Amino acid sequence: MFDYLKTTEDALASFLPSKNCREHKLIEAMQYSLSAGGKRVRPRLVFEFNALCNGFPEGAVPFACAVEMIHTYSLIHDDLPCMDDDDLRRGKPSNHKVYGEDIALLAGDALQTLAFEIMTSDKTATLVGEKSCRQCANVLAKYSGANGMVGGQVIDLISENTNAPIEVLREMDYKKTACLIKAACEMGAISAGATKQQVEAASQYGECIGIAFQIKDDILDVTSTNDELGKPVGSDNDNNKSTYVSLLGISECAKLINLLTEKAVKALECFNGETISLKKFAYELAERTK
Amino acid sequence: MFDYLKTTEDALASFLPSKNCREHKLIEAMQYSLSAGGKRVRPRLVFEFNALCNGFPEGAVPFACAVEMIHTYSLIHDDLPCMDDDDLRRGKPSNHKVYGEDIALLAGDALQTLAFEIMTSDKTATLVGEKSCRQCANVLAKYSGANGMVGGQVIDLISENTNAPIEVLREMDYKKTACLIKAACEMGAISAGATKQQVEAASQYGECIGIAFQIKDDILDVTSTNDELGKPVGSDNDNNKSTYVSLLGISECAKLINLLTEKAVKALECFNGETISLKKFAYELAERTK
Repeated sequence: MFDYLKTTEDALASFLPSKNCREHKLIEAMQYSLSAGGKRVRPRLVFEFNALCNGFPEGAVPFACAVEMIHTYSLIHDDLPCMDDDDLRRGKPSNHKVYGEDIALLAGDALQTLAFEIMTSDKTATLVGEKSCRQCANVLAKYSGANGMVGGQVIDLISENTNAPIEVLREMDYKKTACLIKAACEMGAISAGATKQQVEAASQYGECIGIAFQIKDDILDVTSTNDELGKPVGSDNDNNKSTYVSLLGISECAKLINLLTEKAVKALECFNGETISLKKFAYELAERTK
Repeated sequence: MFDYLKTTEDALASFLPSKNCREHKLIEAMQYSLSAGGKRVRPRLVFEFNALCNGFPEGAVPFACAVEMIHTYSLIHDDLPCMDDDDLRRGKPSNHKVYGEDIALLAGDALQTLAFEIMTSDKTATLVGEKSCRQCANVLAKYSGANGMVGGQVIDLISENTNAPIEVLREMDYKKTACLIKAACEMGAISAGATKQQVEAASQYGECIGIAFQIKDDILDVTSTNDELGKPVGSDNDNNKSTYVSLLGISECAKLINLLTEKAVKALECFNGETISLKKFAYELAERTK
């Protein structure tokens, strides 16, 4: 597997508009959050499925960056005082703490727009063809919008202090977290010209590891320290939120993660190519400590 | 000309996700601002240029709705307390006054996403072809993002209390207002399969009436009453903002609007079709009283 991390970091930087403009403070704010590291889970999945379906990395780049831009915009908006009001993100002051709420809001907005701009550019169309280009943009929009990621955040908001039952939690985690991971997997396959069945399998893998990822997040929220996690721990409890952990307990949650991880690995069976890297990744996510 | 207003209202309603979901409060908030009327200037321009370039209305519908969704999301975010902190919009309480800041923020986010979702749908691709579909989405992204509409809002923010000179104002108005109007005109032409020269002419028309539109807004901000305008008048002055009016005076501004309107009308010369409706529209905007 080629160096997806370096490719992602370089490409993210290259897609940002030049700071040589009056609105340079906006570009700086966009760059601040976009370059704040993180595990780049979603870009990696785009590259992995693109490779598995015999695509080429250059064709996956705009979609890998787009999904990370959507993820980053959601974090910036999520940290705002009118939302979770978090001062820390990935161990650094959150965007609005550095640039002010107004610029942070607009930096989030502009990152979302930029995601769609790079996916629909002439260059991207030349790389992967008109149809794949348009379909990937549609997939990302569908999974990140009102009935996807944003919808999940709304369910999260309205469920606070309500002792939300497990079925609400399941839908919330699916929409808030799994949808975007699912989008990354589908885009990887589509950008490589995969068959419908392959896109479906990628989608299934993404959904399973996505939900497992969120359950693991809930576990880490109660078992980690601030330093390990780079963000305040115990925040779910402080905010009176139901989580998988509060409803099922840690050991049931660990079982659920294993089940979902096995289901994800099984979804890979329909591919002819080398799936070891994606299998490893599913297990890594399940066992991560931060 | 067919009934673009009814078509727009009906289509906007039809593109909203069903409220039969847990996140129905989000959909209600999206609908609240989207159905709040307004002049539907941008959708009309999409339909007008589509017709002028021999397109068919069905093919213009998703782009007409998309540009209105982008416009609406920007208004919702603009009214938030961390931005302009406006309680009224189009004569009604602004979105966050009804739904709370958190839902208003997310409703804006989801409207932006929905704009890109409908432009890149399979149905839209079938109507106008893969390439036009993708190009329109790219045009809207380019003009509404960091170096377009959002960039203009940032210039607006950082120029407060600075006695911004005319060249800053020009760039701000171009980006904040004209860019989206320009995008509407270009998308109308592109969705009809127009030539490069025609798209360029549509763009020129949009830029001119867009800047004229903003200058007219500045004039109305000092000459109207709250009731006429449906929003608080005098807000530019209250916020210590330079405007064309504060820098040049009303009569110079009126001259400038005429000049821009004539330039817009001249840009229409390259079209063979019937341009009377677009000419009338340019004059109407220049002479509007609200």
